[in-house]
Amino acid sequence: MYTEPAWIRSEAIDEESNQLTEEPCFDVAHLGHLELLTNKPEESLDFFVNVYGLTESGREGDSVYLRGWDDYEFHTLKLTASNTTGMVHVGYRTSSQAALERRVAAIEAMGCGIGWNEGDLGHGRAYRFRSPDGHVFELYYDTRKYEPPEGERPALKNIAQRFHGRGAAVRRLDHFNLLATDVSQMRDFMTGALGSRVTEQIRLDNGRLGGCWFTVNNKSYDMAVTEDHSGAHGRFHHITYAVDQRDEVLRAADIFLENGVFIETGPHKHAIQGTFFLYVYEPAGNRVEVANAGARLILQPDWQPITWTEAERKKGQAWGLKTIPSFHSHGTPPVETSK
Amino acid sequence: MYTEPAWIRSEAIDEESNQLTEEPCFDVAHLGHLELLTNKPEESLDFFVNVYGLTESGREGDSVYLRGWDDYEFHTLKLTASNTTGMVHVGYRTSSQAALERRVAAIEAMGCGIGWNEGDLGHGRAYRFRSPDGHVFELYYDTRKYEPPEGERPALKNIAQRFHGRGAAVRRLDHFNLLATDVSQMRDFMTGALGSRVTEQIRLDNGRLGGCWFTVNNKSYDMAVTEDHSGAHGRFHHITYAVDQRDEVLRAADIFLENGVFIETGPHKHAIQGTFFLYVYEPAGNRVEVANAGARLILQPDWQPITWTEAERKKGQAWGLKTIPSFHSHGTPPVETSK
Amino acid sequence: MYTEPAWIRSEAIDEESNQLTEEPCFDVAHLGHLELLTNKPEESLDFFVNVYGLTESGREGDSVYLRGWDDYEFHTLKLTASNTTGMVHVGYRTSSQAALERRVAAIEAMGCGIGWNEGDLGHGRAYRFRSPDGHVFELYYDTRKYEPPEGERPALKNIAQRFHGRGAAVRRLDHFNLLATDVSQMRDFMTGALGSRVTEQIRLDNGRLGGCWFTVNNKSYDMAVTEDHSGAHGRFHHITYAVDQRDEVLRAADIFLENGVFIETGPHKHAIQGTFFLYVYEPAGNRVEVANAGARLILQPDWQPITWTEAERKKGQAWGLKTIPSFHSHGTPPVETSK
Amino acid sequence: MYTEPAWIRSEAIDEESNQLTEEPCFDVAHLGHLELLTNKPEESLDFFVNVYGLTESGREGDSVYLRGWDDYEFHTLKLTASNTTGMVHVGYRTSSQAALERRVAAIEAMGCGIGWNEGDLGHGRAYRFRSPDGHVFELYYDTRKYEPPEGERPALKNIAQRFHGRGAAVRRLDHFNLLATDVSQMRDFMTGALGSRVTEQIRLDNGRLGGCWFTVNNKSYDMAVTEDHSGAHGRFHHITYAVDQRDEVLRAADIFLENGVFIETGPHKHAIQGTFFLYVYEPAGNRVEVANAGARLILQPDWQPITWTEAERKKGQAWGLKTIPSFHSHGTPPVETSK
Repeated sequence: MYTEPAWIRSEAIDEESNQLTEEPCFDVAHLGHLELLTNKPEESLDFFVNVYGLTESGREGDSVYLRGWDDYEFHTLKLTASNTTGMVHVGYRTSSQAALERRVAAIEAMGCGIGWNEGDLGHGRAYRFRSPDGHVFELYYDTRKYEPPEGERPALKNIAQRFHGRGAAVRRLDHFNLLATDVSQMRDFMTGALGSRVTEQIRLDNGRLGGCWFTVNNKSYDMAVTEDHSGAHGRFHHITYAVDQRDEVLRAADIFLENGVFIETGPHKHAIQGTFFLYVYEPAGNRVEVANAGARLILQPDWQPITWTEAERKKGQAWGLKTIPSFHSHGTPPVETSK
Repeated sequence: MYTEPAWIRSEAIDEESNQLTEEPCFDVAHLGHLELLTNKPEESLDFFVNVYGLTESGREGDSVYLRGWDDYEFHTLKLTASNTTGMVHVGYRTSSQAALERRVAAIEAMGCGIGWNEGDLGHGRAYRFRSPDGHVFELYYDTRKYEPPEGERPALKNIAQRFHGRGAAVRRLDHFNLLATDVSQMRDFMTGALGSRVTEQIRLDNGRLGGCWFTVNNKSYDMAVTEDHSGAHGRFHHITYAVDQRDEVLRAADIFLENGVFIETGPHKHAIQGTFFLYVYEPAGNRVEVANAGARLILQPDWQPITWTEAERKKGQAWGLKTIPSFHSHGTPPVETSK
Repeated sequence: MYTEPAWIRSEAIDEESNQLTEEPCFDVAHLGHLELLTNKPEESLDFFVNVYGLTESGREGDSVYLRGWDDYEFHTLKLTASNTTGMVHVGYRTSSQAALERRVAAIEAMGCGIGWNEGDLGHGRAYRFRSPDGHVFELYYDTRKYEPPEGERPALKNIAQRFHGRGAAVRRLDHFNLLATDVSQMRDFMTGALGSRVTEQIRLDNGRLGGCWFTVNNKSYDMAVTEDHSGAHGRFHHITYAVDQRDEVLRAADIFLENGVFIETGPHKHAIQGTFFLYVYEPAGNRVEVANAGARLILQPDWQPITWTEAERKKGQAWGLKTIPSFHSHGTPPVETSK
Repeated sequence: MYTEPAWIRSEAIDEESNQLTEEPCFDVAHLGHLELLTNKPEESLDFFVNVYGLTESGREGDSVYLRGWDDYEFHTLKLTASNTTGMVHVGYRTSSQAALERRVAAIEAMGCGIGWNEGDLGHGRAYRFRSPDGHVFELYYDTRKYEPPEGERPALKNIAQRFHGRGAAVRRLDHFNLLATDVSQMRDFMTGALGSRVTEQIRLDNGRLGGCWFTVNNKSYDMAVTEDHSGAHGRFHHITYAVDQRDEVLRAADIFLENGVFIETGPHKHAIQGTFFLYVYEPAGNRVEVANAGARLILQPDWQPITWTEAERKKGQAWGLKTIPSFHSHGTPPVETSK
């Protein structure tokens, strides 16, 4: 049973602009990695490596560490064998050691802290904390950079690994999407704990936030949260890696088709954020996206959040595609239904 | 005649990493606009509007204000009629008013300040200063956001203006390139005055920097400087707007071909920065680029500059295209040659 | 009330292969043009010229002659003002004068001939005949080639007109789709009268043909016919022009979105024929497609028709998009419904 | 030593139009396959399968049979181990058995016939003949269609094999290019023996043909011949497979770069034929192209050849790229030079 935490500082958010009332915060540099669970570890790993096109950089215990060919860190996805699915935790890297300490102080003041851990194969000391819906986040600065072994070194030394062209060959971790019962609480959490900015949001007719898109840097979003109607908490909606061109999203659709991967919806263009998207389910059921944002960036320091009404959302995606119902219900882990 | 200014603080730069030794600086939000001169104002304006695809947002005196369809500010290019060509000044927008004041203090301490002006049609109060090679920069925070008139409002409200599809239909200002006699001095200037980070550079066999690429945000560069061998100072190499897809760069090549625009080189992919490029000369001779960077971003807060040797540069561009000689010599204004 | 004509020579078709039992027929060179009706002539013309990107080459009476920038003939679309919508006639060009005469003899033997006319602005003498569902076809050899006026001459002389980049800037007429009560009769008609080959078809569970795709050359189809459940006859489903790249189909979607054009479905990839499609309604309601076939061609002289079952069709389009219901019902002219 | 054959029927060619004076000939359906030699058989095979993306369909003796994923025949490339490089023979498939007999009669009348052979793993009885420059051609009708084994069956049954996405993943054989001392003789040969049409050609200032592009169907060319200045005969210039999109040509460039394949020139757009091209050398030195023609087809039955002058050719490729000198000299087998 979920109880509203004491630490929600919604007074720090300007109601008009949905922004922190202070100077912009640059403490968090970027989304770092997700740890996902799979109850079909062999099939999931085969999907992520051979079909989606990630590269394995290490294994430990029940986990395999994976990354896109231009992810600079040791891993951006930690895939852990389990008896269920969903997200174990998400990590963000801070801009400096000092920035990490500032963030931890703020989080502790919010009362949602869990505490420090010693990191894993991919990074050093990290501080964990909990979202109002129960998702586990961590912040870290010390990281392990990917060092391509012989055979993976790129021809051009300004990319992290050679472009291998395997499967969908996604380039880098782009963003992720959580489900939550109360999106407004998540907004306060993201802006308060990470210093994230709200770039777009959905305001439902009932006054609630239906969805909210956040960024800590110039990407137009690195995290999204949408309303969970299931009654469950801490659920995961999807993880997304970016490709360089929209044509690669189309190519990925053919790759998925030929490999028997379930395509949920797309390719099409989101009205919100303008992302060219394609959603599939990896074998264990976690939703995975291939996306391209074109040249879209939020460079504007005083960006005003774009608010979409329910009526606007009913127009469907950018070119009129109706949003598929499962997009509003399917999350991982799945919800037990007692029929 | 150019004299080395006193303000070069090269001791603030770590020789190994070419980075400021302090915490990352986020005072400058993004490149804002360039003012370029043209001695063929009618032809240049026709090129920028009908062929390159910018939109006019205002006129004053000898200047026309222009912007790409997703530039959020009133203008990103101020085109001024003159009897010559080249860059009058370049403007960067800061992250806040406080950040502007911090930068001005730093610049004044460097001794390269010029002073405040009241802005123009596109923005408010701005502080001007001079690069070691004589280029004029300005910083401002107060800006005028573009408000699309009836007929230019986008179907989706998260872009600044409707996608009109006119000409090359470039999306937003991306970066610019200056020429300078001493690239190392420019490096110290950019890191000291703007807090820019060096992302890539060319180290010549003679030990000099042949070129240097800078960023103030997550774009892999917003400014480049390459060596001017002409003996002239303060010259301009090119201005670049981004398109969403590489296919639009190819399409732009056909647009330029059909409109009799001189194509200097491309489309091809740069080894440095991996940009997919196409360079043309606008009618007055200023070099203009259409570019696509794919999903490439510098998210890493402790990015180590990539250094290219002269031998590496001799391999040509990413896919082997030899760099065209004019790319090393043509700048604006052109250099008087008395032979 | 429709009666089965006497001229159906279904014995000339091999039931297994759906092909003529004789040597391949090369009498008809290619689809030439369509004449479409519009009851909103100004809006339709504005759509076809400024949004879809055709070029006007002439006017006569109530008709405007239009073509894509690489259509070599004077016109590929004759747009005629009327009080209704739909197709007046479709023209195919033969491979030679002798081939025209051979086809006319065959058609007259089939008993579906109408007779000769003197042509119009776009071509010379033509022979008209009627499909079993009542659509009017014509064959001609003498044509008028497009001669680009000053200002429309291409930079490269192997294309018909300069690439103007206006609107969706479609390249050339690709194919069209008719509706008919009895698709099997249409199959016999197309193979018998034009010597068309069947490349793909849908066999319904009730044994009827649900749709059939035909070609007279190496394109994988130039004509399609799908079942009309409305009880009406001689109706039109859509006209399609080709663009060079899939990215241009995506770009066209943005162009349509910004210009308020109704997008029915797409962009997506058809399972049948693999076409990357986007369907819109022009202002008067005729369905119009922008499509890209990639490098797909039917070079094989003994191609065996691909037959799709109803079960296979239920999987939706290539990447799983469900076929939108209006795609099975909307045709022009619309059917009067007396509810 | 090369002697002019007696069979050149240049009187059958109209000097103005460069076309046969008779009705169009449809006897030859399409280019079928090339047999190429390699003196580095392991490296060449690795290139063609893992980098270029062909699929092996069989082996016999010193030969491996290969094809693109949508080539419908058993093979389109027969790669034969040897002590040299270059082309052994090229095969075209006729439209029917009767058409084959008509062509053989014409070829025998021309005096350039070699005789029948029993075919190989990929097709049945074939008739071989010789070009005036010494290249060996063959015509056949009986062919062996590719039957995808388990694991290679496509998700959509209208393509020949699943889209595997391996390497450059080229779709189908597109065209080839020969070198010859006398291009005019080759023109007479192609039009006389195969009934090919000339679609484009280069007329040098000295009156000679510098190059000539031919087609037997709606592709704008399936064969090109350019002048060999080396004094050698029967040499090979390049083989080309098509990909669906220009973006795949760009992607192929990255694949080649990462795999250490020598890129000779491109990606860029040819002025002649408008092909978007990329040329590399496979490990043994044979030139190989990845190309995309967009939606370009020659549907016009009375197409007039486009003639390019030497002055026009000096403008370079479509967007101004200067043609690289090796493109005019490198052929296989290489010419012995005694310096």
